[in-house]
Amino acid sequence: MRIVEVSPRDGLQNEKTPIPTEQKANLILNLVQAGLVEVEVGSFVAPQWVPQLADIRELWECIHQQPLSSNVLYSALVPNEKGHARAIELGVTRVALFTAASDAFTLKNINMTIEQSLLGFESIIQTHRQKFSNSFVRGYVSTIFECPYAGSITPRAVRTVIDKLLEMGVDEVSLGDTTGVGCPVETRALITELQGIPKEKVAWHFHDTRGTAIANVSAALDAGYSVFDASAGGLGGCPYAKGAGGNLATEDLVYFLERSGVPTGVDLDLLSRATLEILQTLGKLPTAKAQLASLACSE
Amino acid sequence: MRIVEVSPRDGLQNEKTPIPTEQKANLILNLVQAGLVEVEVGSFVAPQWVPQLADIRELWECIHQQPLSSNVLYSALVPNEKGHARAIELGVTRVALFTAASDAFTLKNINMTIEQSLLGFESIIQTHRQKFSNSFVRGYVSTIFECPYAGSITPRAVRTVIDKLLEMGVDEVSLGDTTGVGCPVETRALITELQGIPKEKVAWHFHDTRGTAIANVSAALDAGYSVFDASAGGLGGCPYAKGAGGNLATEDLVYFLERSGVPTGVDLDLLSRATLEILQTLGKLPTAKAQLASLACSE
Repeated sequence: MRIVEVSPRDGLQNEKTPIPTEQKANLILNLVQAGLVEVEVGSFVAPQWVPQLADIRELWECIHQQPLSSNVLYSALVPNEKGHARAIELGVTRVALFTAASDAFTLKNINMTIEQSLLGFESIIQTHRQKFSNSFVRGYVSTIFECPYAGSITPRAVRTVIDKLLEMGVDEVSLGDTTGVGCPVETRALITELQGIPKEKVAWHFHDTRGTAIANVSAALDAGYSVFDASAGGLGGCPYAKGAGGNLATEDLVYFLERSGVPTGVDLDLLSRATLEILQTLGKLPTAKAQLASLACSE
Repeated sequence: MRIVEVSPRDGLQNEKTPIPTEQKANLILNLVQAGLVEVEVGSFVAPQWVPQLADIRELWECIHQQPLSSNVLYSALVPNEKGHARAIELGVTRVALFTAASDAFTLKNINMTIEQSLLGFESIIQTHRQKFSNSFVRGYVSTIFECPYAGSITPRAVRTVIDKLLEMGVDEVSLGDTTGVGCPVETRALITELQGIPKEKVAWHFHDTRGTAIANVSAALDAGYSVFDASAGGLGGCPYAKGAGGNLATEDLVYFLERSGVPTGVDLDLLSRATLEILQTLGKLPTAKAQLASLACSE
């Protein structure tokens, strides 16, 4: 079982209030202390686009000064060659690239068709492999069920993008239900379409917008998958409604897996504390699981 | 598929701010307008114990004045013989009785052992049957997975209570994961223990405290069950943490079922509006699904 913690990047990127580098580092180290060993730290997106993530260099250096970090697989998003050059400079061996299963979505988000985005990946992947012997490249595929601009997405369309990414040599794909619409029936339909792809190369990135994230994880787990993305406190995802679920909350995922007899290596109590701390920093309501460590349920 | 809407009783009973009868009636009629046809309206608990539900008589009469209500199956909780007498007086043909699978829980909540609670049911059920030819008696069984005071509950213990209730002649049991701890692995284990009990006599009452409600519904649905309790906006349940999930939200259940190809007869847009209205009345944050009717997801 692998949990890829994405809160420092996917969770914080839409937060308007600037968070000091030390607080981000604190979040990351708290999560590591809780037992999470794969963390997406930030993005090498142009600082003017996402000011919140502009301090990736300082943050990267800060967390690597901690002995705690020695066994952690840190990664960062790389949106383009320019960002990749910065990542290489910093010695970021694990990078993530971003595309989607919908042209309408990539056009709106990165101003490229899927095909154009993939073209850009080729040289990045090649350079990356040459640069680092221990490189790891993840390819995000967003809108696996539905695109907010183009509507339904077929499993076939998702498979097509996955195949291209794997042919290009990405180490894993992360399949994102960007709008949180998916139900197990759709997860299972997509899984049927994924026949032949090694399960360990597929990570699932579910959103809990409509309360279906754990149901989807459960369906994927039943089918033999074992890599899941999650974000402490459910931070990020589709933050259109205050109080609404965004990303699958790491505490919910860990709870579900442990309760289902699948060891995660994560200490739920420490995770809950880390989550409460970042939620307080952001002035957000604590999520359910984040409170359970300290509060008893009286009914 | 049957959805039993419990927000007017289970959802509002722990709300401290008094809600005027007309607003409760408004909630109920909005929910009916949205297509919900089974609604638990309130409780005949002694008014001093739950002042919020003290207006059950006025509320019952108010909603029955509306033509909209003619095809709706309204019900109410009956905690004891005294409450039952008031229910009969009002012509409440559908009643719900409350017990649990844990003595520690019934002792704390109703000051009786399970056995004592069941003894009380016998005469209520008998009287009820004699009084109404179209009677319907539901038996709540709480703490089906875990009791906040006694810990783990075995499927066997749950089965024992169910058997006694069915022997007494209740028309259905509603199995409640009171503390919202359950995962599909436990739901499936309990289902195995329920062999021989007609599935239509079993309703599932899941809580979404840790994001597992829909996963549990999905497991029960896969096993052939078709009766689920839900509460608009997830109101009620275990309200120990502001912003935390309580009951399974009706809008999440309807969304999940419809998306899974199971028709519910509920209009999600109208349901969302009804939910937004009651959440605003209560000064609560809107839940995800309740907002989706009016807000588009931009990412």
